[in-house]
Amino acid sequence: MTISMYRASVPLFQQMLPCLSAVLDKAAAHAAAKKIEPAVLLNARLYPDMFPLTRQVQIASDFAKGSVARLAGQEPPKYEDNEASFDDLKARIAKTLGYVGEFKPSQIDGSEERDITLVLGGNQRKFKGESYLVNFVIPNFLFHTTTTYAILLHNGVELGKRDFMQPPGVG
Amino acid sequence: MTISMYRASVPLFQQMLPCLSAVLDKAAAHAAAKKIEPAVLLNARLYPDMFPLTRQVQIASDFAKGSVARLAGQEPPKYEDNEASFDDLKARIAKTLGYVGEFKPSQIDGSEERDITLVLGGNQRKFKGESYLVNFVIPNFLFHTTTTYAILLHNGVELGKRDFMQPPGVG
Repeated sequence: MTISMYRASVPLFQQMLPCLSAVLDKAAAHAAAKKIEPAVLLNARLYPDMFPLTRQVQIASDFAKGSVARLAGQEPPKYEDNEASFDDLKARIAKTLGYVGEFKPSQIDGSEERDITLVLGGNQRKFKGESYLVNFVIPNFLFHTTTTYAILLHNGVELGKRDFMQPPGVG
Repeated sequence: MTISMYRASVPLFQQMLPCLSAVLDKAAAHAAAKKIEPAVLLNARLYPDMFPLTRQVQIASDFAKGSVARLAGQEPPKYEDNEASFDDLKARIAKTLGYVGEFKPSQIDGSEERDITLVLGGNQRKFKGESYLVNFVIPNFLFHTTTTYAILLHNGVELGKRDFMQPPGVG
């Protein structure tokens, strides 16, 4: 037995993105309670040359929608990257979840050997579907969700590991 | 076509753990250049109730060795968690890589339906192999590698995204 490409992609995004949305709720509540301007958290970074929180969420969304589209042989939708509030970011996550949720296993399964070409840092990079998903998309997606969480924790939002992810049940 | 359980586990650890080791080299070099006591970085946290850097690396190692062992139906080896230097942490990563590298695909493949029981926070939790790997081990492993990286970046160690991960080539 083996894992399907669908099983290794869409359900992971469906597990992590609602947690990310709930983490943003806690951040918004924290800002309201402490009378912190939300933009302070939205623009917070762990270091000056890192992306701020808003961009981390946008990139996590991009990896989710982009990977599912490309594995299915479709052009990824472009979102405007104009989110300016926690509600905007939550709406983007909801839109991303709506998009990835439309895909059926039959559209993603069998994409292990699909050729996927990206332009990264100005250079063309070729992947096979499996390596694209396992060694590129998943580490990057989790990098940006974790960093969002780390930025908020560092800024005093009370979050536990369960806010980052709910352990799955049996099955 | 599908992904094998081996392909979704061991090569991911073999991709990420050498990067983590190289990141620790950069941290050690940064400490030496700036005359920072290494223990300052080893004990650095993003917030008081988060684990320090040393523990993040230990947990990343635990998810790698623990998952590969459990998927193969073996008892995970216990490491002592007594690392006190960058070299100790690098040795632990090397030991972890040596351990996971001994497993053959035939020992891991077919473990999708294997029952895996963990005790988490005092509660027994049952998983099937596939969900254990995709929805529990991989997000946790990447959470702790990303957090290690975030702690060092926040403390001024110069790291880029390529230090976190090398994009895979074709195949």
